[in-house]
Parts: sequence; structure tokens; C-alpha cells
Amino acid sequence: MTTLVIRNIAELTTNDPSIGDESSLGRLRDAAMVVDDQQVLWVGPNATAPDADESLDANGCAVIPGFVDSHTHLVFAGERSDEFEARMAGVHYDGGGIARTVDSTRAASIDDLREGTTKRFAELTAGGVTTVEIKSGYELTVEGEVRDLRLAEEFTTETTWLGAHVVPPEYRKDREGYIEVLTSSMLDACAPLAKWADVFCDRGAFSIDEARFILESARAKGLAPRLHANQLAHSGAIALGVELDCASVDHCTYLDDRDIDILSASATVATLLPGAEFSTRSPFPSARRLLDAGVTVALATDCNPGSSYVTSMAFVIALAVREMAMSVDEALWASTKGGALALRRDDVGHLGLGARADFAVLDGSRAAHLAYRPGGNVVAQTFRATFTATDVST
Amino acid sequence: MTTLVIRNIAELTTNDPSIGDESSLGRLRDAAMVVDDQQVLWVGPNATAPDADESLDANGCAVIPGFVDSHTHLVFAGERSDEFEARMAGVHYDGGGIARTVDSTRAASIDDLREGTTKRFAELTAGGVTTVEIKSGYELTVEGEVRDLRLAEEFTTETTWLGAHVVPPEYRKDREGYIEVLTSSMLDACAPLAKWADVFCDRGAFSIDEARFILESARAKGLAPRLHANQLAHSGAIALGVELDCASVDHCTYLDDRDIDILSASATVATLLPGAEFSTRSPFPSARRLLDAGVTVALATDCNPGSSYVTSMAFVIALAVREMAMSVDEALWASTKGGALALRRDDVGHLGLGARADFAVLDGSRAAHLAYRPGGNVVAQTFRATFTATDVST
Repeated sequence: MTTLVIRNIAELTTNDPSIGDESSLGRLRDAAMVVDDQQVLWVGPNATAPDADESLDANGCAVIPGFVDSHTHLVFAGERSDEFEARMAGVHYDGGGIARTVDSTRAASIDDLREGTTKRFAELTAGGVTTVEIKSGYELTVEGEVRDLRLAEEFTTETTWLGAHVVPPEYRKDREGYIEVLTSSMLDACAPLAKWADVFCDRGAFSIDEARFILESARAKGLAPRLHANQLAHSGAIALGVELDCASVDHCTYLDDRDIDILSASATVATLLPGAEFSTRSPFPSARRLLDAGVTVALATDCNPGSSYVTSMAFVIALAVREMAMSVDEALWASTKGGALALRRDDVGHLGLGARADFAVLDGSRAAHLAYRPGGNVVAQTFRATFTATDVST
Repeated sequence: MTTLVIRNIAELTTNDPSIGDESSLGRLRDAAMVVDDQQVLWVGPNATAPDADESLDANGCAVIPGFVDSHTHLVFAGERSDEFEARMAGVHYDGGGIARTVDSTRAASIDDLREGTTKRFAELTAGGVTTVEIKSGYELTVEGEVRDLRLAEEFTTETTWLGAHVVPPEYRKDREGYIEVLTSSMLDACAPLAKWADVFCDRGAFSIDEARFILESARAKGLAPRLHANQLAHSGAIALGVELDCASVDHCTYLDDRDIDILSASATVATLLPGAEFSTRSPFPSARRLLDAGVTVALATDCNPGSSYVTSMAFVIALAVREMAMSVDEALWASTKGGALALRRDDVGHLGLGARADFAVLDGSRAAHLAYRPGGNVVAQTFRATFTATDVST
């Protein structure tokens, strides 16, 4: 196997507290790193870097773990920029536009769906993302959800069945009928294709009791639960997510003290998606209160055509720093290690020995440039371990 | 001369009110455009597009005039991400860090300065900018300001002498002495290299009376005035800018009713730089009040290493829409035609017949994607007229 040494790293963030400055970021300055095709073999001072088969000069730039984008809806067709403009002019976001994307996705050919998904995946990758979660949820039929999960599998092992995104138009007068389909034929068809099950549990989508039933049904078929929680209202979804031991509750736009208490006593990650608050003119979630209470926080893009057409983790970090009072280092950790914990992965999101060789070389001497130079792409190169399909264990 | 027809443009924004829907955006749908190496020759319905020597299929994407970024400090060395982090943690921005960039720029070789400027210029261009203003102001010596203006001339004809950025450290006890240098030997040396003179007129920089004296001295040497106004405080700089018939007063972070009245009765453009408010955690300027009062508004990046390390006009537009209550169309106009007016140019910022052939083909069917997909680059291709140096009349 070919080995590669990356030399002259001005600032290496490993997220391994046993390394370097012993903060949670495990940071080394004037460092080097050795990887092979699969994993990190060595990190340490540049001056003592061992030789390897190949060599890359980071030339005084920073290196970070690849971003783990733990919440995306990457498979869709169509666009809804008119809705965005209406929201910016004062129209309230209520999730009602999802049905438009369901229409356009159902109507799209698999080639068109693949082309759009490939393009967005490439944008994420160019911006430093090396692990991405992808949800279904824009067809809401057995065949359609299967088609979209199969497509998602071409890009990631972190596939999520979101048949319970909204009740589709043809079931609007028979939501019990849709939940019956969801938890029987659709679940049977989708379970082999997904690692996770997710429910949009919110005002106008699915209720607490419906979400519990759907996620428990999915768990019985081997899918691990995660949840869209409290994006639109104080719904009780945070408590449900913790009750079900969800890996993550996502959005958390509306949080009360009890939600924070419940999360802080749990293993459930709070995944914040500030691209959605930016793009729906909503209040940003209280990241500071979560962090101060000891809750594990992740950041993700929520890439979707309605509420957050975002493919840049650096933009998410800039928003977290400017609008949510997170430090750059907290936002960087939440976008890497935090995202990994939201997917219950310990092989990604850090660069400790044995971690996957997933990392990004920045165009800048410090990781802080991710927020300090907002709106651009400060990722110079993204490296992703080249596991074969059978090597990937998740 | 070679002609080029761009076909299948889903949405063509010309900023020429005599074209298309007769709004100020002069917008055509299902359109085509013909240009040669220098200017726009024809715009109209796709179905009636004439032939040309070459053809480009826009494939259902939008086309906009190239952005006119009328306020940048592109020539500098060094970085100040630590200051950005401190500000995000609560430290107030007062412009004091400019002296650090003066130190690093003075110490930089011309090759290093050119490399950094070239890189930032390329980022702007990749994001759709076709006309850029570049200021000096980070050396503050006769030789240094000359060096930086000569470098700026390699990139643009819109060069601005900003010797009056701050009083440099060696003159801290003799500001009169610095103003004497500014208005004599430095101005004599810089006037042939610059089109504009600018002064940072604000708390901690130059006073109203100093700014008036410097700009009047510069005007006597043939330089047209523009002004940094009201970034840090209510300083009276807006009134000064109008008094001197400045092409533009820039920042306008702090505005009172009188400022708005004065601007609305003038030919002076209010150039807003929301990247600076984002990056210094300052209140965003009241774009809505300016627009509603009939003031001409421009948007620009203010690219600089202290308060706004931004090279994406799309990011500026997204901020203007999300944080300053501008519509996408208002922000697009301010970034193109508004920028042109801030530079008193009528050949750029629009795509009417005879305009410079400066335009951007987007990766998206509507210009609204510039704000709807924030943080990424939705510009697919940037076209800039290839005038020779002697052809450029400004």
C-alpha cells in the first residue's frame, strides 16, 4: 500500500485530545502527517516526520479532519428560488413547499437525479466534506424511496430513509393509510438500503406519537433512529429523540430549558443547521446554551432545495461563529468530530492514529480562515480514504 | 473581430430599462445575446437570435452583467484571523489592526504582493466580477504607495490612492507632518497612477477637516474623490462626501435622517459593504431606508485582511438579502449597475447595446440563485471584454 507524508503543516487539527496541545482539538503546529490509502499512520512534529512513498508539501497551510456532513437531502430535482425570495420578503416558512420537490423528483429521470446529486456531492467534496449522510424523502412512494436510497448508496454508506418527510398529496385525506404504507411495504423495501430512519416530527408534518411508531417500526427492521426536531415549533420532539436513543436530533431551532436538560443527560447529539435559519429568516438556535450545558453539538448543511440550498461547510461554520456565538474551534469540532458522533462513527471526524485518511488541506495558515474568509472556498484539496466497498464497515 | 452568440438563456438581466420587461432590470426570458470581443451587439428572444462566428449554449441558465466591485483593498500581505476570532468573542473593531497589515505589506516582496493580489483577483473573477476598484493604503510611504498603485494598475484602471488610510506609526506624534507628506510628495508621486483619491474619514482615522483638505488637494492633481464614511460612528462624513461631489460614500454603517436626506438629493452613491458588518459583528446598514428615499445603492466586497476578507459578490448579495431587507433584484442591480455608478462608469454594469461584453453565465436558471444557494459559487463562467490597454477609456 502506498504511503504519503504531508509536510510543512502550519496547524494540524487532529481532534484527538491525546495529541498536541491536549485540548479537545488535539492541535499541533509545524507538523507533519503520514497516511496510507486507508488510515492515519503517524502525526507529529514536521522536523521528525518519517519518509514515505510519496510526499506533499502543505507549504505552511492548515490541515483539518474532513468534514462529516451528517444531515443532507442531496437526492432531489427542481429548484424553489421563488419561495426563497418570498420568504425574504416576509412569507413564513412552514415546510409546505416540500410537496413541490416531491412532484419534480417523482417526474425526474434517474439520470437527471444522478446528475444533480453528483454535482452537489462534488461541491460538498470540494469544500472538504469526506463523509456525508443522505436522506430519501422526496418521492414518498415505495418505488420512489427505493430508487432514491439506491442512488444515495452510490455516494455513501450513511443512507437514511425519510419516507416520513411529509404526508404526500395523494394521502392528504388518509394520513393513517400513509403511515400504514410507511411501516409495512415501504419499510420492508427500504430497510435493506438504509442505515438510518428519520422522521420530520414537527407542526404540519408528523406528530410525536406518529414519529415514535414509525421509528420503532423501523428499529424493528434494523434501522437506527434519528429525528428532525423542533425546527418550526416547541413540539416535544427533543424528548422523543432522547427517549428513542436517537443518534441525533436535528435543527433544535426552538429549545426550552427542559430540552437542554434532557439532551445534556443523554448520548443524543444536537445537530444544528444554521443554513436553514439563514435561508428561512428564522432565529438561529442557541448553540451557546447547548454547549454550556455540555450537550454534544454537530453542524451540518441540511442541503435541500427548500430551506437550505447550502453545499459549503465553511459557510455553515461562518454562520455558527457570527450568528450562534460558537468559537471557530467549537464550530470546527462540531463539523468534524461532532458530525461523526451524530452518525455514531469513531473512524471519521478526527485524525488520531488509525482514523480514516479523510482530511482537507486548507488554502490558509489557520483553520480560522474557514470563518475569517466567509463566502469563499478556503479548502485547497480534499483527501478521502479509498476503501473498497467491502472494506467499509459502518 | 470574432462574434459570439449565447443561446438558450433562461433569464437575461440587462439592467437596461428599454429592454424586456421594462423594469430597471431590463429582463428577458428565453433569450439570447450576441457580443464581440468588446461589446454587446444584440439581445433579444432566443428564437430570433442571429448567427455569429461562435456559439455558446447557456443550456437554460441565467446570464447577468458582470459584477462591478467598486470597493476593494486587494493589495496587501499577511493575515489577521486572530483579530477576527477576538472580535467574534466580543472585542470591538476600531480599525487599529490596519497597522499590522501596513507592517506586513511593507515587508513583503513585490513578487509576494503580486501573487496574493493575483489570487484574490482570480477569486473575484471566478465569482463573476469583471470590473474591480483597487485601493492602495497599506504602505503609507511615498515609495510604498507608488509600488502598490503600480501593482493595482496591472489589474484595473479603477485605481484609488488611499494614502490617507490611517496615520502610520512613525507619524503618530506628528499627524500634521504626515498630512504634509500626503498632500505634497506622496500625492505628486501617486496622482499619475490613480483615478481616484479616498480617505478613511472616521473616528480614529482622519477628521472631516483633514479629509476635506486631502481630497481637495487630490482633486487639484486630477484625482476624483470618494470616501470611507460612517463605518465606525456618526462622523459627518456623508455630508462631506456630498459636499465634495464624491462618486460614492462607502460603508454607511451609521446613518441618521439627515444623512439620508443629503444623499437622496445628491449624485453620490451609497456603497454598502455588508461583508464588513458580518466580519466585525456590527449592525448592518439600513439599505431599506436608503432605497426607499431614492438613494442610489451599490454593494461591494471591501476585500481586505482586517474587517472583510471577502472575495465573493454572491456572498455580499446573500447578506444584503438576508440581513439588509434588499430583494434579490435590488441586490443584483446594486452589485452591477450600482457599482458602475459608484465608479461613474456607463459602459459596465449593464448589457444594453454597446455595453462592454462583461457578463457571467450562472449555474442556475435564475439570478436569485446567487442568494438562494448561499456560500457556494453559482457562477459557471465569467466573460470579460478583451480591450487592449489603449482602448480602455475611463
